[in-house]
Amino acid sequence: MTTYRPPHQDMAFVLHDLAGLDDIALLPGFEDSTADLVQSVLEEAGRIAEEVLAPLNQSGDQQGTRRENGVVKTPDGWDRAYRTLVEGNWIGLSCPTEFGGMGLPGAVNAAVNEMWQAANMAFSLCPMLTQGAINAIQSCGDAAQKALYLPRLISGEWAGTMNLTEAAAGSDLGAIRTKAVRRDDHYLLTGQKIFITYGDHDLTENIIHLVLARTPDAPPGVKGISLFVVPKILTDAEGKPVRPNDVHCVSLEHKLGIHASPTAVMSFGDRDGAVGFLIGAENRGLEYMFVMMNHARLNVGLQGLAIAERAYQQARAYALERIQGKPIGCPERTSIADHPDVRRMLMGMKAEVEAMRALSYVAAAALDRAHAHPDPAGRDAAKRYAELLNPIVKGWCTERGVEIASLGLQVHGGMGFIEATGAAQHLRDARITTIYEGTTAIQANDLVNRKILKDGGATLRHCLAEVSDLARTLSGQNDLLLKDIGDALGKATAEALQATAWLLETAAEDPRQTAAAGVPLLLLLGTLLGGHQMARAAQLAAGRSTDPACDQAFYQAKLRTAWHYAETILPRGSWLLAAITRGSRTVMSLSRAQL
Amino acid sequence: MTTYRPPHQDMAFVLHDLAGLDDIALLPGFEDSTADLVQSVLEEAGRIAEEVLAPLNQSGDQQGTRRENGVVKTPDGWDRAYRTLVEGNWIGLSCPTEFGGMGLPGAVNAAVNEMWQAANMAFSLCPMLTQGAINAIQSCGDAAQKALYLPRLISGEWAGTMNLTEAAAGSDLGAIRTKAVRRDDHYLLTGQKIFITYGDHDLTENIIHLVLARTPDAPPGVKGISLFVVPKILTDAEGKPVRPNDVHCVSLEHKLGIHASPTAVMSFGDRDGAVGFLIGAENRGLEYMFVMMNHARLNVGLQGLAIAERAYQQARAYALERIQGKPIGCPERTSIADHPDVRRMLMGMKAEVEAMRALSYVAAAALDRAHAHPDPAGRDAAKRYAELLNPIVKGWCTERGVEIASLGLQVHGGMGFIEATGAAQHLRDARITTIYEGTTAIQANDLVNRKILKDGGATLRHCLAEVSDLARTLSGQNDLLLKDIGDALGKATAEALQATAWLLETAAEDPRQTAAAGVPLLLLLGTLLGGHQMARAAQLAAGRSTDPACDQAFYQAKLRTAWHYAETILPRGSWLLAAITRGSRTVMSLSRAQL
Repeated sequence: MTTYRPPHQDMAFVLHDLAGLDDIALLPGFEDSTADLVQSVLEEAGRIAEEVLAPLNQSGDQQGTRRENGVVKTPDGWDRAYRTLVEGNWIGLSCPTEFGGMGLPGAVNAAVNEMWQAANMAFSLCPMLTQGAINAIQSCGDAAQKALYLPRLISGEWAGTMNLTEAAAGSDLGAIRTKAVRRDDHYLLTGQKIFITYGDHDLTENIIHLVLARTPDAPPGVKGISLFVVPKILTDAEGKPVRPNDVHCVSLEHKLGIHASPTAVMSFGDRDGAVGFLIGAENRGLEYMFVMMNHARLNVGLQGLAIAERAYQQARAYALERIQGKPIGCPERTSIADHPDVRRMLMGMKAEVEAMRALSYVAAAALDRAHAHPDPAGRDAAKRYAELLNPIVKGWCTERGVEIASLGLQVHGGMGFIEATGAAQHLRDARITTIYEGTTAIQANDLVNRKILKDGGATLRHCLAEVSDLARTLSGQNDLLLKDIGDALGKATAEALQATAWLLETAAEDPRQTAAAGVPLLLLLGTLLGGHQMARAAQLAAGRSTDPACDQAFYQAKLRTAWHYAETILPRGSWLLAAITRGSRTVMSLSRAQL
Repeated sequence: MTTYRPPHQDMAFVLHDLAGLDDIALLPGFEDSTADLVQSVLEEAGRIAEEVLAPLNQSGDQQGTRRENGVVKTPDGWDRAYRTLVEGNWIGLSCPTEFGGMGLPGAVNAAVNEMWQAANMAFSLCPMLTQGAINAIQSCGDAAQKALYLPRLISGEWAGTMNLTEAAAGSDLGAIRTKAVRRDDHYLLTGQKIFITYGDHDLTENIIHLVLARTPDAPPGVKGISLFVVPKILTDAEGKPVRPNDVHCVSLEHKLGIHASPTAVMSFGDRDGAVGFLIGAENRGLEYMFVMMNHARLNVGLQGLAIAERAYQQARAYALERIQGKPIGCPERTSIADHPDVRRMLMGMKAEVEAMRALSYVAAAALDRAHAHPDPAGRDAAKRYAELLNPIVKGWCTERGVEIASLGLQVHGGMGFIEATGAAQHLRDARITTIYEGTTAIQANDLVNRKILKDGGATLRHCLAEVSDLARTLSGQNDLLLKDIGDALGKATAEALQATAWLLETAAEDPRQTAAAGVPLLLLLGTLLGGHQMARAAQLAAGRSTDPACDQAFYQAKLRTAWHYAETILPRGSWLLAAITRGSRTVMSLSRAQL
C-alpha cells in the first residue's frame, strides 16, 4: 500500500505568502476565515486524506466498480469514506453558509481538494462533481431549486453529476441531440449521455444530474442548448422521495485509470421520458456551463497537481530507500536518490509540483477576489486575471501531471512497471486529466480566443509586465541564485511577449496558424507563470533563509528549487517560442492523404 | 480490433536512400541480399505482421499470460503465430547461414523487427530475446555450444532468454549474487532472477537461459561475473532431451503493459543446483554482455519506433474518421484531422516516427558495416559510429515512443481512455521500453562515459561535422523549405557542439554535473541526429518531388514533414542545452532531507 503525506508546510506557504489568503480573509463574506480556523481545517482535511482516503487508493483501483442487477457498486470502504466527508460537512467547505456550507474561501478549498485528489483521485471525483452541480444551481437556479437541491448537495446527502458528452458530441457540444420537451412545469428528456463520472453509484440516496439538452424549437448549434436538473429519484419540495425517474445507467466503461470511479453511459427517457427541470432560461445552457467552468477546470488542474505530488512522494520514498550502485563521489553503495540522474528527476518533479501548486492556489485566490472584492474595479481586475489563468492551470498542470507521474514510474526502474508498486496507477489515473473537462486543445482555444485575442492581449500583457518587473528586480540582486532566477525569468518573459505579439499579428492573417499555436502557447505561459510564482517564492525565501525565527531548511530548499526551475524548466520557452512562431506555418502543410 | 499496415514505402526509402542498403549488399557475406530478395522478404514479413501478429495484439493484452500447474500459458493464437515464424525461418533472418540462418543484413532485420514489434510487441519479445541469446552464443560460445544451440535457436525450435536482474541487482549488475560452482564439465547454479522476459512459456520444447552468476572465488563487483547457458531441459549433444534442469518459474508479474509477455521470477537450483555451462572464460560475463548489447539495445530502440508508428497509425485513422466541430476555414462539420491542434499532434508524431526510423536503420546499417566492411579502417569507423548511436537510439526512440503513444491517446479524446479503443494499450506497452535493457539514465551513462569522454569527443565531433556540413549546404539553397531546415539544423548543431565542449570541460571538474547532464544530452543528440537524417531525406526528396518518375506526393510529404521537424522539434535543443550547461549545477543542491 502506498502512502500520502499532505505537504502542509508548502501549502501554508503558498496560501499565505503567494496567494494572499490573509488579505482574502478580510474581504466581505470571508471574515470568519481566521488563520486559526484555516489551519485547523487544513490539518483535519489532511488527516482524512492521509488516514481515510489514501489507504483506499490502491485497493479501489484493484477492485474497481461493478454493475450488479442494475446497481453500481463502489469498492469496499468507499461508503465509510464518504460518510466521513458528510459528517465533517467537507463537501460544502466553500459553499454559502445560508445553505449549510462553511463559506470558506475557494483558495482553502483548493488546498483541501489537492489533498483529497492526491490521496484518492477516483474517490474524490464524487465530491468534486457534486461541487460542480452545487456551483451550477447556485449560480443559475431559481429560489425553489436552490432551496430543494443546495442543502442536500452541500451536506452530501445527495450527489451531483454533469451530463454533457454524447457519442457524436464531445468537444463539440453544439452537436448535442438529447431532447427536452416541455410538459407543464417540467420537461421530458430523451437521449443518451456517455462518459458520465459517478453517473450512478451506491454512496447516496439520490443523484442530481445536470443535463444539457435541446428543446424542439431550439436554434441549431451551441445557441440552442438548455440546462436541466434531472434527479435520479423524483422528490417532493421537501426532498422526500416520490418515485424513480426514467434515468438509467446502461453500462460502465473499462478504462485505463480511475478504475474505482464509475464512468457511466446514462440513458434518459427509455420509457416515458426523464423528468427534468429547466435551469434559468431555455437556450442559455452553454452560457451557464461557462459560469461554472472556472471552478470545474481549476479543480481538474488541481488533480494534475495532486497526482504529481503523490507521484513525487512515492518516487522520493523509493529513491531514498532503494540501495543500488555507487554514484560518483560516493565511496559506498548508496540509495539511488544520490545518483545524479535520479536526483535530476526528483528535483524536476519537486520544482514543477511547487510551481503548479503556487499557480493553482493563486488562480483560486483570484476567483475569490473576483467574487468578493468590495470594489467593482478590483473585482473586475481579479476576474480577468482568474479567467486568464483558468485554462492555463487546467492545461498546464494536467499535461505536466501526466509527465511527472511518468517520471515517478521511471524513478522506480523495473519495479515501476509492476502494478503492485502503485507508481503505474498514478500514470494511469493522471492520463484522463488532459482530456476531461475540455482537452488541452480546448483549453488552448479558450486561452487564445477568449482570454487573449478578445481584449487585444491587454490582460496578458498586464500580467507579463508584472513578471518582467520582478525579473528585473531579481537580476539586480547580489545573491547569485536570485540573479540567475531573474535572468532566466527575464528571458522567458521576453519570449512570452514575442509569442503574444506574433499571436496578435497572425490571428487576422491566418487563424489556422494561431489555432495550431494554442497548445504550445498555453504550455509556454504555464511554464512562465509557474516560474513567476517560484521567483516570488525565491525572493521571499532569500529574505528568510538566514532568519533564525524561520525554518531555514525550508526556505533554503525553496530558493534552490526555484533556481532549478529557472535553469532547467523556464528554458523550455525558447523551444516553445520557435514551435509557435515558426512551427505553426508547417502544421497544415500536408494533404490528408499524405498523413 | 485495431489494425496495422506496414509503412513499406518509408521503410524502403530509409533502407535504400538513407541507410545505404545497396552498398551493404556489396559487402562480403551479404552478396545474396539482392534488392529483389530484400523486397520480397519485407513484403512477406509485413504480411505476417499485418495478418498474423497484429490481430492478436489486443486479445493477447486482454487475456494475458497465466501460470497453471507450474506451466506458463501464452494467450490464444500465440502458438499458431509462433509456428508461422518458425516455418518461415524468420528468427534467423540475419543469423549466419552455416547454422541455418538467412544471413541477411541487420538493417533488413531492423525493418522486419519494426513491423513485428509494431504489430504485437508482447508477442515479438519472444523472438527478440531468442535473437539476443543467439548473438551471445555466436559471439562468445565455443564450437560445441554453437553446434548444439545455434541451429535450434535460429530455427525457433528452442527459445532463448537473458537472466540478469536480481532483486538487489538491477542497474547495478555488480551486485549479482547468483552462485555458480564448478562440477567437472559444468557448473551448478543457485539463485533467483527477476523480470525475466519469456522466462517460461509453452511455445517451445526447450528454453535456453543465458544467466549471469558469480563463481565462489570471483572478484567482487562487475569483474567477477560469468555468463552461463542454462537450458530448461538438459539434452545430449544432439539436442535430445535427457531430463528437466533445476530451473523453475516461481511466479509471473502483474504489469502495466505487455500483459501477454510473461515476465517471470526464475529460481535456479531449488533442489541440487541448476546445471549451467560456462560461456567463454570465467569473470568475463559482463564483457560478453556488452558484445551483444549493441543489438539488444538497438532492438529496444526499434520497439520505441514501432509502438510510435502503431500509435500514429491508430490516431491518424481515428482522426480522419471522427467527425467533430467546424475548424477555422471549414464551412461544414469535418473530421478532427482538419482541426489544427489535432493536425499538430499528428504531424509531430509522423515527423518523429520518420526521424526515429531513419536513425535506427542507419544505426543498424553501421553495425552491418562494422561487422562486414572489408577494410579494417572502414570497420573501425563504422564501429565507432554504431557504438555512438547505440545508446542514443535506445534512449531517444523509447523516450519519444512513450510520448508519442501518449499523444496518440490524446488524439482520441475520451475514447482514448477507454481500453477497448486500443490506444491506451500502446502507452502501457511502450512504458517499459525506457526501463528494460538499461534505463535511459544507463544509456546516458554509456553515451557520456564510453562514447564521448573516452575518446575526448572525437567520434561525436566527427559526426557533428557531417551534420554541420549538410546544414550549411541546405542553408544556401533557394528552396525556402530546405533553407529553413538548414538554418534550424545549423542552430541545433551549434548547440550540440556547445554541449559537447561543456561536457569535456566539466567532466574533470565536477563529474556529478556531467552525470546529471547525461539524459538531457542524450535527448539533445537524438533530436539532432534524427533531424540530420530528416534533412538528408529532405535534400533527396526536394530533388525528386518534381520528377514525374517518382511518387511526387511521397517526396513532397517527406520534404514538408522534415520542415515540420526542423521548425518544431529541433528547437528543443535550445532548452536542452540550457538544462545541460546551466541546469546541471542545480541538480544536487538540496540535502536528502530537503527533497
